[in-house]
Amino acid sequence: MQYTMNQQKSPILLAPGPTEVDPVVLNAMSTGAESHFAQPFADTFGETLTMLRTLFQSQDPRAQPFVIGGSGSLGWDFVATNFIEPGERVLCLSTGFFSDAFAECISTYGALTNKLTVPLGAAHDLEVVERELRTAKYKALVATHVETSTGVLTPLKPLSDLIKRVSPETLFIVDGVASIGAEEFYFDEWEIDVVATGSQKALSCPPGLSILMVSALALEVALARKAPPASWYASLSRWLPIMQSYEKKEVKYFATPPTQLVHALHAVLTGIVSQPLEQRFRQHREKSDQVKKAIRELGLTQLVVHPQYEANGLTAFWLPSGLEAKEFLATMALKGFVISGGMHKTLGQKYVRFGHMGYSVVSEPTKHIDKGVQVVRESIMEFYTSRLRESTVTTQVNVDYEHSVCSDLWQIDGQKVLDLGIEVL
Amino acid sequence: MQYTMNQQKSPILLAPGPTEVDPVVLNAMSTGAESHFAQPFADTFGETLTMLRTLFQSQDPRAQPFVIGGSGSLGWDFVATNFIEPGERVLCLSTGFFSDAFAECISTYGALTNKLTVPLGAAHDLEVVERELRTAKYKALVATHVETSTGVLTPLKPLSDLIKRVSPETLFIVDGVASIGAEEFYFDEWEIDVVATGSQKALSCPPGLSILMVSALALEVALARKAPPASWYASLSRWLPIMQSYEKKEVKYFATPPTQLVHALHAVLTGIVSQPLEQRFRQHREKSDQVKKAIRELGLTQLVVHPQYEANGLTAFWLPSGLEAKEFLATMALKGFVISGGMHKTLGQKYVRFGHMGYSVVSEPTKHIDKGVQVVRESIMEFYTSRLRESTVTTQVNVDYEHSVCSDLWQIDGQKVLDLGIEVL
Repeated sequence: MQYTMNQQKSPILLAPGPTEVDPVVLNAMSTGAESHFAQPFADTFGETLTMLRTLFQSQDPRAQPFVIGGSGSLGWDFVATNFIEPGERVLCLSTGFFSDAFAECISTYGALTNKLTVPLGAAHDLEVVERELRTAKYKALVATHVETSTGVLTPLKPLSDLIKRVSPETLFIVDGVASIGAEEFYFDEWEIDVVATGSQKALSCPPGLSILMVSALALEVALARKAPPASWYASLSRWLPIMQSYEKKEVKYFATPPTQLVHALHAVLTGIVSQPLEQRFRQHREKSDQVKKAIRELGLTQLVVHPQYEANGLTAFWLPSGLEAKEFLATMALKGFVISGGMHKTLGQKYVRFGHMGYSVVSEPTKHIDKGVQVVRESIMEFYTSRLRESTVTTQVNVDYEHSVCSDLWQIDGQKVLDLGIEVL
Repeated sequence: MQYTMNQQKSPILLAPGPTEVDPVVLNAMSTGAESHFAQPFADTFGETLTMLRTLFQSQDPRAQPFVIGGSGSLGWDFVATNFIEPGERVLCLSTGFFSDAFAECISTYGALTNKLTVPLGAAHDLEVVERELRTAKYKALVATHVETSTGVLTPLKPLSDLIKRVSPETLFIVDGVASIGAEEFYFDEWEIDVVATGSQKALSCPPGLSILMVSALALEVALARKAPPASWYASLSRWLPIMQSYEKKEVKYFATPPTQLVHALHAVLTGIVSQPLEQRFRQHREKSDQVKKAIRELGLTQLVVHPQYEANGLTAFWLPSGLEAKEFLATMALKGFVISGGMHKTLGQKYVRFGHMGYSVVSEPTKHIDKGVQVVRESIMEFYTSRLRESTVTTQVNVDYEHSVCSDLWQIDGQKVLDLGIEVL
């Protein structure tokens, strides 16, 4: 068959998902056709599930990992339809677009969601959460570990401690889509009940897998529910025996698993568990610090307001006023790097998101991250220079939105290079 | 990274899904990481959707194809949650395991399903269906075009005619998982409202995509429903703008699409639409006839009782008595071919399923199908021979299940080679 792919040349992808994939993993993606009933596949799937226990840092044999074909957000349906019954209360801590969507998904299944919000880039105040937790009996508290749309990290340990102290019967449910594989995460130690993630972010597997880890308690809750699950494909009770069987390397059928993606995840996890997880977390912290330092040096500001809530897998930063995300992304692309625009109804064009997670951080830090940072720097500099040419040095640029960067002095590589004398944003 | 895949050598897969994949398509599976927000991906996804219109033989621009990450059976949830409201009646024509599951999925979402059943291997009597259709007001009639567990084909045109004549307001919904790409299918002409299929059967794409085609009428019904869809991930109203945008090669976001699988499907469809579909159907008919002839010549019987209901993409046949599917599959595997066992609570070990669809039929008929048939023949012959050695020629083999093959005379390649003098099954 004659066929030429649309994707001719490959820019380097530094989005907060999908992320660059190890050639070895891409090779696993082109594994030949194979029966999901055959032993070699059962072995692969079984080992994949077992390695997920290491990834999530869980030693409890009664907890269960799940891998289901679908986008990461299928995990939200899985949460909503299995652990929460219609009419039950759920406290959703929103930090942006994705947490909002998760809450909406939960409402879709008939739960009474109470969504706590914070200003863009801010994190939740534990005292407010505690007050809310005391007002009603919540079946679950849902938090987004890293909000992909803003880069806000929600520390999980303090939240878990709070739940255990104030409302111990409340399930602690975490969206780990943009955190698992990049951020410290201790499923058992932090007493998390459910975490849902996707394949295509800090795991650097291609997209198409919804991955979950469910505690023994949450399994009990799901299996004891009064209302039957309102979904077929996202039903825990249907998938549970499948996952239990495959983990014993025995075949059981519910729906055909995406065999090639399972091979890819197997390859990914084989790499991840071959190194101490702490090392992986440290690599992400270091590269994140480097990106964030460069952004500061460019006089630019992150969306995340307080440094202790900065995610280590992405950096969302406001662009200089007059520079739209679309334009900046195009400049970056010409230089061989793809990053992402903002995800916000009105402010989406005002900021961009630079992903630094997974393969690019762990295996190609110089070629991907260092070079990516350099290209961000060049692109911002070019914009400043063009502005400088177009305006007089004293031009006042209108600050047309709330989250301005109030730097009129900026440095590159520690050296003061320009003083535009303007409000840069 | 050091990594060795579990799948070292590749037997040829002749299961009724997943099926063998063109190396060109496997190559598309290892497409590098790419942003789903970038234009090259939008182009690929857009072309993929447009080519699906050709595949389904639909010229109605108001109808809409959908491609969603997940197993083929996710399409059942899509049907159940978008086109049918809780309490509405659905007439489900079951021909086996998968039609039963589809009906159960629809019940999960609160519909009142009336499931008509037939004996294993039989097809539905249109008079019975007509009688049933006249007893109540059905929102939808659901039929499985090809039942993967038995190989029974349900002719769609007569059913469509019946619906239009007797109950024209009833939606005609088709499970095309094991038929699309192998069987004649005319979405517009047969006035089908929804067809759901998967990527891994007669399309010969790797598993992981739920693919649907929805008529203008069904779209209206879904968008006008009173009860909101009870699913987030399977919600038509959330996916519709995404599919409409991508088909215009414009990016819109709901959940991250499995980019590599979309590339693979693009490659698959590029191949399919480059030839007349009629030719593809004919190739499937011819190879199917050849397999079925060989099975008959071996004195074996298909599950499908009447030849006019035989699917062209698989052949399910009863094994000789004393030969379990497990054992037969192992023999076949040693000879380099993987086929599938039966899918039936009590009779699963009594029969096997030989898949002859997609790439193997269209591109490798000699190496895959002809050789596969030869290996089936050898394996059955070896069993007969071993039985012959173990027993006297006049041994009476107990017929221990209903569907026996009543041949005591069988031929290979037109030549009478053995007369065991026993009831072979």
